[in-house]
Amino acid sequence: MTSAARQDEPSATGAGDPAPAPQFHGTVWVALILMLWLGVQPARAAAPDPLPAWNDGPAKRSISKFVEDATHAGAPTFIPPSERVATFDNDGTLWSEQPSYFQLAFTLWRIKSLARRHPEWQAEEPFKSVLAGDAQGALQQGQAALLELIQATHTGMTLDEFSGAVKEWAATAKHPKTGRLYTEMVYQPMLELLAYLRANGFKTYIVSGGGVEFMRPWVERVYGVAPEQVIGSRGALRFELRASGPVLVKEATVDFVNDGPGKPVSIENFIGRRPVFAFGNSDGDQQMLQWTAAGAGLRFMGIVHHTDDAREWAYDRQSSIGKLDQALDEASTKGWLVVDMKKDWKRIYPFDK
Amino acid sequence: MTSAARQDEPSATGAGDPAPAPQFHGTVWVALILMLWLGVQPARAAAPDPLPAWNDGPAKRSISKFVEDATHAGAPTFIPPSERVATFDNDGTLWSEQPSYFQLAFTLWRIKSLARRHPEWQAEEPFKSVLAGDAQGALQQGQAALLELIQATHTGMTLDEFSGAVKEWAATAKHPKTGRLYTEMVYQPMLELLAYLRANGFKTYIVSGGGVEFMRPWVERVYGVAPEQVIGSRGALRFELRASGPVLVKEATVDFVNDGPGKPVSIENFIGRRPVFAFGNSDGDQQMLQWTAAGAGLRFMGIVHHTDDAREWAYDRQSSIGKLDQALDEASTKGWLVVDMKKDWKRIYPFDK
Repeated sequence: MTSAARQDEPSATGAGDPAPAPQFHGTVWVALILMLWLGVQPARAAAPDPLPAWNDGPAKRSISKFVEDATHAGAPTFIPPSERVATFDNDGTLWSEQPSYFQLAFTLWRIKSLARRHPEWQAEEPFKSVLAGDAQGALQQGQAALLELIQATHTGMTLDEFSGAVKEWAATAKHPKTGRLYTEMVYQPMLELLAYLRANGFKTYIVSGGGVEFMRPWVERVYGVAPEQVIGSRGALRFELRASGPVLVKEATVDFVNDGPGKPVSIENFIGRRPVFAFGNSDGDQQMLQWTAAGAGLRFMGIVHHTDDAREWAYDRQSSIGKLDQALDEASTKGWLVVDMKKDWKRIYPFDK
Repeated sequence: MTSAARQDEPSATGAGDPAPAPQFHGTVWVALILMLWLGVQPARAAAPDPLPAWNDGPAKRSISKFVEDATHAGAPTFIPPSERVATFDNDGTLWSEQPSYFQLAFTLWRIKSLARRHPEWQAEEPFKSVLAGDAQGALQQGQAALLELIQATHTGMTLDEFSGAVKEWAATAKHPKTGRLYTEMVYQPMLELLAYLRANGFKTYIVSGGGVEFMRPWVERVYGVAPEQVIGSRGALRFELRASGPVLVKEATVDFVNDGPGKPVSIENFIGRRPVFAFGNSDGDQQMLQWTAAGAGLRFMGIVHHTDDAREWAYDRQSSIGKLDQALDEASTKGWLVVDMKKDWKRIYPFDK
């Protein structure tokens, strides 16, 4: 522990502590006094890089500069701690979203684990195809079939039951390409960014098109984001007073789709403040980025561009998942940061060497 | 400042500070060392009462006991800081709600200030009656007339415009009985309770049937509750990209009525944790209290009972505003705290002597 670091800690024994003073040589005293006087901060100089999975370059530098400017007391760029709201999309921004949204993988997994209770599914589409291992065949039956799968796995049960299923999936289900848990397929550079912002007094929120109740069971453990800072799409909940006590039941009605123009709306509904920092990866994040950009004072808008088909996936304007087209153009016009995954990220996943 | 208080503060100059030590007599040293050794904490003994507007009695004692039990590290009643979620109704729980909900007073006030832009209102009901000073006559025209007044004052404008109107009302409009600003008619004992809980690591939320955008412009200043901890009824918002930039427009559709069984639903939607502490004053809070009570571990459920028609108002089972009937019975059966305003509160409003 350096002397400068100790200055930020409470004195363990009080100012009037009669314990013997540490023995320093005179020259050490002189050096310490000089350092204090000159404002030299050895602890800061020695602090580890908060963003080690980011390659040195303009992307990393722009993030560091934003955080330094935002926290520089007295500077015109200073942002008061209560206004340090940072919002992140989830799919494709904090974790992967290929070959299909991970919530769809959960849906198909859940169909299989619910099949015991539904012997009739063996003969009924789209369940029959899913149970026969032909997910593609099930999904090709169209939007109504997909909705049926979602209803069967996401509604008509208590919230506790649903959360339990999500936890089991998160703890066991593996991704077909990497063989890793889905919750391991989160981006190491973004984990570092979340932690770096929080260490500088920012509140980090997830603002995702995914279901809020699908995220809450694991995002605190994985991202360090508390349940009350997770905003997502919502199905209706119904309060029911049962003999065993009150429960919340997940209903079939969709209450809110948290995508595109829905994102600024739910940010206002839930947070009631405009973010100063927002990160997304697709056109579904464009309005959140516009809303963030239009506020007064210092702001930061970032986009993850999937450019790495060796370590992750490469897709943008033509993709059916995470399509990035208009937002990419706007980012270029407005000078928002576009992260080139291949160039800017030293590691993708925590398990990468 | 006592020595014990200083122990909780960072040392201003560092452990190796060469400044001359304060001069203490030997006996003071001995006393200080003894106090540290015995674990005596003079600062705590001398701490001011956090609830001075509460009369000493079972109500005050049950609150203090809950907070002590919840924060007692190592005790079976201990509640980890992240789980310290406290939810409060607003109308009739944190501020008065008679002779009519204060949001209705805002509505009538706003009709008058918008009348310049609507010359046709002089001849059109229910506006005509409001503008002629006959609010009662306007309201007696029924539910549709009330809805028309609410739509005219709460929708079809940007959120910024609405918030500005609320701020102006909060800063100027006076209550007909007390002649005080509405935002002064908040309960001093509840302000103290909010602050006491926050000082002990609780997050205090408002969970009100009132409009969320009607509360946010003033509750942080008045109650110390940040915008992101305010949950209320919600009208639809629409994101619109104008030439001048993006705006949120308040639409006529009601998105969510945050009352009765809606309260546990929105608590789950917004917070994603079950409260350990909840306070209400009417049957509209009963499900929030039930939901809070049904969790595991230490919990606290409280009800403000309006019993003081000298200093405030007295009403319960028969009232059309803030009806307290079934929740009062359940409180008595379940042993929830029922605050007797007349007996338990030394002062009602901050301006009371």
